[in-house]
Amino acid sequence: MNKPDPAPRVSADRLRTFISQAFEKAGVPVGDAGILAELITEADLRGTDTHGVFRLSLYVRRIKAGGINLRPNIRVVAEQASTAVVDGDNAMGHLVMRFAAQVAINKARATGVGWVGARMSNHAGPAALYAMMPVAHDMIGLYFAVGSNNHLPPTGSAEALLGTNPIAVAIPADQEPPVVMDMAPTVAAFGKVRVKAAQGEPMPIGWMIDRAGNPLTDAKRAGEGFLLPIGDYKGYALSLIIGLLAGTLNQAAFGRDIVDFIKHPDAATNTGQSILAVRVDAFCPIEVFKRNVDTAVRAIRESRRLPGVERVWLPGEQSHNKRIERVARGIPIPPTLQKSLDELARELNIFAILE
Amino acid sequence: MNKPDPAPRVSADRLRTFISQAFEKAGVPVGDAGILAELITEADLRGTDTHGVFRLSLYVRRIKAGGINLRPNIRVVAEQASTAVVDGDNAMGHLVMRFAAQVAINKARATGVGWVGARMSNHAGPAALYAMMPVAHDMIGLYFAVGSNNHLPPTGSAEALLGTNPIAVAIPADQEPPVVMDMAPTVAAFGKVRVKAAQGEPMPIGWMIDRAGNPLTDAKRAGEGFLLPIGDYKGYALSLIIGLLAGTLNQAAFGRDIVDFIKHPDAATNTGQSILAVRVDAFCPIEVFKRNVDTAVRAIRESRRLPGVERVWLPGEQSHNKRIERVARGIPIPPTLQKSLDELARELNIFAILE
Repeated sequence: MNKPDPAPRVSADRLRTFISQAFEKAGVPVGDAGILAELITEADLRGTDTHGVFRLSLYVRRIKAGGINLRPNIRVVAEQASTAVVDGDNAMGHLVMRFAAQVAINKARATGVGWVGARMSNHAGPAALYAMMPVAHDMIGLYFAVGSNNHLPPTGSAEALLGTNPIAVAIPADQEPPVVMDMAPTVAAFGKVRVKAAQGEPMPIGWMIDRAGNPLTDAKRAGEGFLLPIGDYKGYALSLIIGLLAGTLNQAAFGRDIVDFIKHPDAATNTGQSILAVRVDAFCPIEVFKRNVDTAVRAIRESRRLPGVERVWLPGEQSHNKRIERVARGIPIPPTLQKSLDELARELNIFAILE
Repeated sequence: MNKPDPAPRVSADRLRTFISQAFEKAGVPVGDAGILAELITEADLRGTDTHGVFRLSLYVRRIKAGGINLRPNIRVVAEQASTAVVDGDNAMGHLVMRFAAQVAINKARATGVGWVGARMSNHAGPAALYAMMPVAHDMIGLYFAVGSNNHLPPTGSAEALLGTNPIAVAIPADQEPPVVMDMAPTVAAFGKVRVKAAQGEPMPIGWMIDRAGNPLTDAKRAGEGFLLPIGDYKGYALSLIIGLLAGTLNQAAFGRDIVDFIKHPDAATNTGQSILAVRVDAFCPIEVFKRNVDTAVRAIRESRRLPGVERVWLPGEQSHNKRIERVARGIPIPPTLQKSLDELARELNIFAILE
C-alpha cells in the first residue's frame, strides 16, 4: 500500500476550490457547490480515488445534460418518531444524503435510533462519507445504497439484475480511529475494473465472468461480462437485501428499473439510499464503549501474524492514515485524471488543477 | 439440493414433544420447555440441520453442568423510545431473543424502528428464526449475533479473534415467500466443517487454512486451523462489525472474552445478540412494498440462466420449500443424530425419537 507515488499533488484547499468553481460554473448555487466540494474532497483525502474528483466530469456531464435538478426541494415526505423518507427531488446525491444523515442524527438523539431512507436521489460518492457522519455525535452510522448501474447477476443467472450495492458501517473509538467498513458485495467494485482498463492491465481471475460463465480477465471487455459476488450466493443475497432495503423500501429504483447514470446522463435515476444513526449511550456508557472498541482494535492489530504478514489492518485504518498523509502532502493527481480535469477546466473556463 | 434422503423421518409434532420432554426432564420449567421445543423444531423444519435438534445434547449438557440459568429473570435494563437492552440473565438464548424480538416489534409499532440488544444470552439457534419474527407483523427483521466460539482470524492474523458472527435479514413479500438471508461471514460455517468431519469427507480448498496459512482440507484437523472469510478482508470486516454491534455495544463478550460454549459447558458465555424490527409502512404502503418485492423476486427467478443452471434461487426459498416438504413428510433423523438422541433419551428416561 506504500508504493512510491510519482503523481503530482494538489492541496485539499486547492482541490476544494476547483470542485466548487466547477459546480458553480455548471450552474449549481454557491452554497450547494461548497457542500459538494467539501464532500468530494473528503472522498479523495480518504483515498477513495474512484469515488472522489475522478467523478467530477461525469457529474458535470449529467448536470449539463439536464439529468440533475439544480434547484431541488429536498424534503421529508413521511415520518415516524424514528424514521423518515426523504424525497431528494433529483438533486446531487451528496446533498440528499447529507440532509438525510442530519435527520437521522436528530431522530437518534430523540429516540435512540434514526433510520432515514431517500428516493429520487443520485450517486453520492463513497458510502463511508455518510456512515461516518453520526460518529462525530458519538453515534454509530450505517449506510446502504442501490448502485447506479447493474453489473451483478443473481447466482446462476445470466442477467445483471443487481448492483454493487454498497454497505458502510462506522463505529466510534476512543484513542483509535473509528472502525469503518465500506464494501460492495462483489469481489471487485466496478470502479476498480475501470482503473484496470485505463491502465491496460488484466483483471485477476475471480473478479468477473463472461456471459457463458467463464472467467473474464480482459478489463477492456468488462462490458461483455458480469462481476462476481463475494462468498458466491452470500454476496448475491447481500446485494439483493441491500437493494430491497435502500431501493424498494424507499420506493426508489431497483432491479430492472435501474437507470445507468453513465449511459443516460439526461435521465433521473431515482437512486435509493438509507442511513441509520444509533446512539451508543442508549446501549452502553459512551466512555466504556469507546474504551472497549480500542481494546478490540488493539487485540487485532497486535495479534500474532501469519508468516510473511507485516501488519494486520483494521477496517478504515488505511483510509484514516491516507487522510493524515494527504492533508499534509496533498492529493495525488495522476496523468489520466489531470487530463480529464484540464478538459473540464477549459470547458468551464476555470483555473487548471495543477499550477 | 434434492438428493434422495434415506434417513427415517419423524413428524414435527413428535420432535417437538421429544425436545420439550428432554428440557423438562433436565429441569426447564414446562412453559419455557415448550417455547424451546417450538423454536428448535422450526429450525429443523426449515432445514437448518446444524442448528436444530442436532444441538439438543449440547444444550442439555450445558444445563446439567450448571452453564445455563433455568429460572432466569429476562428483563429490559435500559431503554429509549426505539431501543432497549435486554439482560438475558444467562437463560437459554432462544428465550432471550424471543423476548427481545417482541420488545423490538412493540417499539417499531410505536416509532417505526425497534433496535434491541441482548447481553448475558446464550446460543439461540439459527439467526433466521428471529429475523423472521417481525415479518408476521408486516415488518422487516434484522438480526446479528456474536458466534459462540472464535474460528476466524482477522486478515493476516494467526489468531482466531473473531467468530462466524451471523447476520440475518427477513423481508416480507406478497404471494412469494419472504426473502430471508441468513449467513456467516465465512466461506463455510463451522457446523458444516463438523458435518464433513462426521462424514469422513475432505473440505474443499478455500474453507480453512492451517496455522501457517496453507489450505487445510482434512476436516478432522479443523481444530488446528482457521476458517476463511468471504471476500477476504470484506468478510473479516463484516465479522468484526457484527461483533462490535452485537457484542461490545451490548456489553456482551467479544474477541478474547468469548467463552467457547462447547469446551466450557459450565460457564456463562455472556453472548450478545441484536434484533431490529422496521415497520414497512413507515416508508412505503405495505401492499405496494409487498407487490414490488414479488416483482423483484420473479424477475430474478425468471431471468436468463447461465449454461447448465437449472434454477435461480432466492435467499430463503430453499428453506421455505424444505419447510413445506418437512411439514408434510417429517424431519429426517440420520443415524448419527439418532444415536445421540437415543443416548439422551436413555439418560433422561424419555421416549426414543424413532418409533
